[in-house]
Amino acid sequence: MTATHLTQPDRLITINADMGEGIAIHSFGNDDALLSFVDTINLACGMHAGGPNEMSSTVEKALVAGVTIGAHPGLPDLAGFGRRYMALDPEEVRELVLYQVGALTGFLRANGAPLHHIKPHGALYEMVTQSEPHMEAICDVAEIYGVPKLGLTGTRQENVAKRRGIQFVAEFYADLDYNDDGSVIVARRASSRNLDDVEQRIRRALERGKIQTVTGKQLPIRVESLCVHSDIPNAPAVAERIRSVLDSHLAGIEP
Amino acid sequence: MTATHLTQPDRLITINADMGEGIAIHSFGNDDALLSFVDTINLACGMHAGGPNEMSSTVEKALVAGVTIGAHPGLPDLAGFGRRYMALDPEEVRELVLYQVGALTGFLRANGAPLHHIKPHGALYEMVTQSEPHMEAICDVAEIYGVPKLGLTGTRQENVAKRRGIQFVAEFYADLDYNDDGSVIVARRASSRNLDDVEQRIRRALERGKIQTVTGKQLPIRVESLCVHSDIPNAPAVAERIRSVLDSHLAGIEP
Amino acid sequence: MTATHLTQPDRLITINADMGEGIAIHSFGNDDALLSFVDTINLACGMHAGGPNEMSSTVEKALVAGVTIGAHPGLPDLAGFGRRYMALDPEEVRELVLYQVGALTGFLRANGAPLHHIKPHGALYEMVTQSEPHMEAICDVAEIYGVPKLGLTGTRQENVAKRRGIQFVAEFYADLDYNDDGSVIVARRASSRNLDDVEQRIRRALERGKIQTVTGKQLPIRVESLCVHSDIPNAPAVAERIRSVLDSHLAGIEP
Amino acid sequence: MTATHLTQPDRLITINADMGEGIAIHSFGNDDALLSFVDTINLACGMHAGGPNEMSSTVEKALVAGVTIGAHPGLPDLAGFGRRYMALDPEEVRELVLYQVGALTGFLRANGAPLHHIKPHGALYEMVTQSEPHMEAICDVAEIYGVPKLGLTGTRQENVAKRRGIQFVAEFYADLDYNDDGSVIVARRASSRNLDDVEQRIRRALERGKIQTVTGKQLPIRVESLCVHSDIPNAPAVAERIRSVLDSHLAGIEP
Repeated sequence: MTATHLTQPDRLITINADMGEGIAIHSFGNDDALLSFVDTINLACGMHAGGPNEMSSTVEKALVAGVTIGAHPGLPDLAGFGRRYMALDPEEVRELVLYQVGALTGFLRANGAPLHHIKPHGALYEMVTQSEPHMEAICDVAEIYGVPKLGLTGTRQENVAKRRGIQFVAEFYADLDYNDDGSVIVARRASSRNLDDVEQRIRRALERGKIQTVTGKQLPIRVESLCVHSDIPNAPAVAERIRSVLDSHLAGIEP
Repeated sequence: MTATHLTQPDRLITINADMGEGIAIHSFGNDDALLSFVDTINLACGMHAGGPNEMSSTVEKALVAGVTIGAHPGLPDLAGFGRRYMALDPEEVRELVLYQVGALTGFLRANGAPLHHIKPHGALYEMVTQSEPHMEAICDVAEIYGVPKLGLTGTRQENVAKRRGIQFVAEFYADLDYNDDGSVIVARRASSRNLDDVEQRIRRALERGKIQTVTGKQLPIRVESLCVHSDIPNAPAVAERIRSVLDSHLAGIEP
Repeated sequence: MTATHLTQPDRLITINADMGEGIAIHSFGNDDALLSFVDTINLACGMHAGGPNEMSSTVEKALVAGVTIGAHPGLPDLAGFGRRYMALDPEEVRELVLYQVGALTGFLRANGAPLHHIKPHGALYEMVTQSEPHMEAICDVAEIYGVPKLGLTGTRQENVAKRRGIQFVAEFYADLDYNDDGSVIVARRASSRNLDDVEQRIRRALERGKIQTVTGKQLPIRVESLCVHSDIPNAPAVAERIRSVLDSHLAGIEP
Repeated sequence: MTATHLTQPDRLITINADMGEGIAIHSFGNDDALLSFVDTINLACGMHAGGPNEMSSTVEKALVAGVTIGAHPGLPDLAGFGRRYMALDPEEVRELVLYQVGALTGFLRANGAPLHHIKPHGALYEMVTQSEPHMEAICDVAEIYGVPKLGLTGTRQENVAKRRGIQFVAEFYADLDYNDDGSVIVARRASSRNLDDVEQRIRRALERGKIQTVTGKQLPIRVESLCVHSDIPNAPAVAERIRSVLDSHLAGIEP
């Protein structure tokens, strides 16, 4: 599978995962194990986690694995892993994201690799789901780099991206609960997932185009990418199951 | 005067200054006053000082002033302003500089401006004056971006750059003392300079191609750029004097 | 004037000011000029500004000036100067404040000086004005150290402190606007103040025990300490005027 | 075993371990498993690792385990885990250590626990082994708090402490190589240890009072505490073996 998948959203579906979230000697997540199951990664850029060393080695590993690389900018909050809301104004978000995406392109350029997409992390992801001016800031950067934005369909994220003409890749979280407005509920610390639950949720999303929200409502959903959280303890097993479900699904719909 | 100066080192001489070294609401230096006297700036990249907000606004101001923009990467030491030596290995330096230069290119790209050069800050500048493997790391990044390196002539900085085929712009410090090996003595906190002393030192360097070291030795020197430290309290006056001396010197040698 | 002022809130009124907010070589505020006009300082503890070096030198300067020293803990956000709201839970606030107050006591202990009070900074100050559980966290630390809390009268700050039996010193901001709920409006960057306006507001607060809110409502106010912001460009002049108004007021009411 | 061990250095020998070195959701080391094998811990103070949350929870866990708590201050270098030398002057070291020890006392005071000792981390530990003025700075803080210093016997650490009258607890590293000057060789990242090697080295040190340096020289050694590194992958097994060797040794020498 190659990076061209994301540029053909109507036909194919990718798997993405956050990576490079260690700090110094603190390794984190399940990066090596996950790399064989995913198509594209969202690489932490040093503000909520990661840093120059993690970015450098993760870019190299991803390229060896044949996986495309997107930027995963976050809030400047190491102690909170970027999962605590901070009251930044849109201009601050634009500058923070420009800084982080730029930093990542240093390592991509060193390896002759393109930037594949932008996907904000944690509380920044929630912020741009709720606030159009903040989503505009992300779109500014996506436009400057000419790359798509990964995000939640049916939310302000998609509305603003569409209005701006930014390519938007709708991603589905098999391991998170959904609110009625299409936003997802992110816990500070992830716990292991039941593989059969994950499979069932993906099948329903892929086959019926719907998910059930926390209030029981049925929400229409478009699935162009499936996200695996690398900080789930059993992330590789989850990724393997998602890969298997997705492959069998794609076998049925692709020519 | 335009950015093409630095690419014609045999004919013209530029003035460069460090900028964007504030942190949050802590403004610093004399950026606005200096911009009218310099040709090119070395912009702090958030590790020893500065940050996304300072980089964004300084890039914009520099472009309005018609000044070219180089990267001024430093050690990750806000509390020491990057002026305390840290025992980094060459690979760590390469990653740190790639990260910072990359981050700066985000703001340059947003404004359609090119990266002009790389010049390390403080203790990192001293490190690459003393250690060839660390200078190799800087050259890696200069090569990746295809830009010149500003530095001290007659030192390991120049030796490595020449061997690598990296364009090297020899800069002169009118406001610092020189050691016999061509390295300069940087104080943690800068104090005001006597303008006549500065003028005399520049004239000697420009006209005789020599400087006197702290031991009284005469050291041959090549001057392709003159550096003004923006943290000197009377930096704008120093810059104005340098500009005036340089203009009269150039009037004499240019066709 | 001595530290005993704050322990006699019914009789005397003090002047307090935030200090030690520089970072590394970035000096900030008007600390030296202000020290002769204030009774007590709120010393930054390294999270929103300041750091070990600033704390050490400011403690020494304050003791020379005969001024008491309180802790001024803030949110961990150097780039936002602690003035951007962050969604911390009460336990995180308790730990952050315990860390910062503890750090300050290191420098106090080295100089044989007592901790005088606790006053949160910026967005943390606003947080504990709005949320009782977060104010409980501050009270936990005030209780552990047996010191008073400086804050806004008529708000959740005072309610919780009273219920907990924590001594509460009501402070008045002559240079900020008030909301109807008794909270104040803090700008990210301070501008200079008109001295006569400041004097008039203080006189009204001291003599009539009332302030006018932004909606024109009259709010009863108790004044046990007057705060001067050291980041106002004309802070020393403001402090001098406050000192003069306060001295003439105290001369009239004290035996 | 209780905290009184360290105050009776001639009779008993303790086991100490570094702890609380996680960052945010990045857990690190083997703290929970180690707590049952050690007598005292060296708690990271937020500069090289750890932070308010890790300090708070580790203090609580240590007290439940009946283990005493010392401060483990380090250099301000999260990305290098405090293991990269930084050129700080003695006054900067004093301020940094005062800040960190003070911060720890906040959590100790909240739990009614005393500060047990000070032991610098990583490159700071090496710095005070090599430089007397820097060791003086550590002694200043040990004196201010009236606690012993853990360190390397036969080095400048011990010389300065003795001259100053600071109680000095000589610790032995069963898992590190020694130089001829009594200093130890610390790797950036720790690897697993052979348990029998560890046992043999401890027996030799305890029984003969000697260790063999990397050049084959026999160095006299005094053992008042044995250190276990919690970042060794098999740290709990190493600690268990050390505990067993030490208990059998102490059974033979204690009345």
